[in-house]
Amino acid sequence: MPTLNEIQEAHNRIKSFIHTTPVLTNSSLNDLANAELYFKCENFQKAGSFKIRGASNTVLQLSKEELKRGVATASSGNHGAALSMAVTNLGGITKVVMPNNTPDIKIRNVKRNGGQIIWCEPNQASRDQTLTKVLDDTGSVLVHPYNDERIICGQGTAALELMEKNPDLDIIITPVSGGGLLGGTLCYAKEKNKNIQIYGAEPMEADDAYRSLLSGKIQSNETTNTICDGLRAQIGTITFPIIREKVNGIIPISEEDIISTMQMIWERMKIIVEPSCSIVLAAVLNNKKIFSGKKVGLILSGGNVDLDRLPW
Amino acid sequence: MPTLNEIQEAHNRIKSFIHTTPVLTNSSLNDLANAELYFKCENFQKAGSFKIRGASNTVLQLSKEELKRGVATASSGNHGAALSMAVTNLGGITKVVMPNNTPDIKIRNVKRNGGQIIWCEPNQASRDQTLTKVLDDTGSVLVHPYNDERIICGQGTAALELMEKNPDLDIIITPVSGGGLLGGTLCYAKEKNKNIQIYGAEPMEADDAYRSLLSGKIQSNETTNTICDGLRAQIGTITFPIIREKVNGIIPISEEDIISTMQMIWERMKIIVEPSCSIVLAAVLNNKKIFSGKKVGLILSGGNVDLDRLPW
Repeated sequence: MPTLNEIQEAHNRIKSFIHTTPVLTNSSLNDLANAELYFKCENFQKAGSFKIRGASNTVLQLSKEELKRGVATASSGNHGAALSMAVTNLGGITKVVMPNNTPDIKIRNVKRNGGQIIWCEPNQASRDQTLTKVLDDTGSVLVHPYNDERIICGQGTAALELMEKNPDLDIIITPVSGGGLLGGTLCYAKEKNKNIQIYGAEPMEADDAYRSLLSGKIQSNETTNTICDGLRAQIGTITFPIIREKVNGIIPISEEDIISTMQMIWERMKIIVEPSCSIVLAAVLNNKKIFSGKKVGLILSGGNVDLDRLPW
Repeated sequence: MPTLNEIQEAHNRIKSFIHTTPVLTNSSLNDLANAELYFKCENFQKAGSFKIRGASNTVLQLSKEELKRGVATASSGNHGAALSMAVTNLGGITKVVMPNNTPDIKIRNVKRNGGQIIWCEPNQASRDQTLTKVLDDTGSVLVHPYNDERIICGQGTAALELMEKNPDLDIIITPVSGGGLLGGTLCYAKEKNKNIQIYGAEPMEADDAYRSLLSGKIQSNETTNTICDGLRAQIGTITFPIIREKVNGIIPISEEDIISTMQMIWERMKIIVEPSCSIVLAAVLNNKKIFSGKKVGLILSGGNVDLDRLPW
């Protein structure tokens, strides 16, 4: 399980390759939540999401020989773009297996950063099968989007920056999909401050983390029929034990609440966020008993939204 | 004509009532423009636009007796909301004459800040007539949206903050409608640095400032058929002489370029801006001869966009 020291080392390794994103506040949203909200804006991050943190941390630890072979991954988009950016910067080649229903902006984002796309069907079986074939055919090195301690350490650096800037947070909430961001946040924050509470938020329509926590065993997503294209992955074998041991709770959110909160952030904060991260504000507004009166850090994970296909 | 000192005094007067908005940069837009672009983000300003600067500066100079009578204005929305906020904070009442085709978000923004709306037809004659009736009937004090030196001084404080943060700008560009923002920017910037160039950008579909400059006399808008609901006003009798004497040029922009540049800012900078301010980036990208290789300050004037009626 990643330690605070390892996440600090990851931050030292990657910090010249990433943006230190701002932490924004908004008085009208504070009033609405009856809480002090601190938004860590990874939507302003390089390649448009926090994923560059884990990707950089991993790629910077590859050997020259591994880089020469090239890297491959399966990704709904943000990890693929981030990995492509990190690898292209070091002169390597990235192959990204992507579902054929990925939003255009995420496709463009992978291509713009030098990644090569290999299409699969939008289900886990096709994704796994296609990736295996790519790895077998090309000898590329796998960089998994979340089930890898190097990735988890990298993603934990967002919480590190947030807590350095706001050391007295009572709670942090992140979205949860495969569990890299939530896992890294838990490993850093709970070791830094044993009193801090950490929550994850996920769509009701892809609630594997919530049900896994309830049952104590990894559960599959029964549907992934959610607008949150970044939150359809399956919780990982490395991330789940971290979450199970450390998290204070996983909060499932309806599609309706995800969309209305996304619109609220756009309208009041004047920033572009994905539905995959507006979910954290929905969780705060729906659970006053947990969050009211508290200093809450919310990780806004990304801003890659297809402007031609808005959900309202 | 407002002086640098008067604008400095205005800033001292209003600074505790407004946000010091951030100045953002974006490397991909720099590459596209072949210039260093510094975006002054008044879309993050209180009430969603720079208008709170001029409104606060004016209202803070009213007497108790004037405040008691209440204030009135005619506004397509941003000035109305800003004035309502400034007056409500001091315990007064604001009446805002608004065209009946104003976007919903700007209507809500006036109401949320305590303003009372009086509807008019969307043309200058109806606007003037309705406002005159309100002033006659109620004895309210007129706070004009731009044709007032107190307003011009207030709007000039955005350039003051921008130049304090980035003292070596070669050029500043602002949108132009009634001329308050451009006029205030000219009065401050040209006195602060005699070598700086200042441009205005306006829609081809409401190009009164451009034609007025050409002819040397105030010209009316022949159409106001532009998506820029904030840029449909008529250049003022106080603002025009300032612009005529000091501006380096007014750049007219097509609706197509306004919309595509707005989408570009949303997608690459992950911030919400009105079409009325994406126009300044369109002017930079369309005029490489003026802007290439330069350090350019762009005032992004507001972020009050109706998310249900996006132009793409």
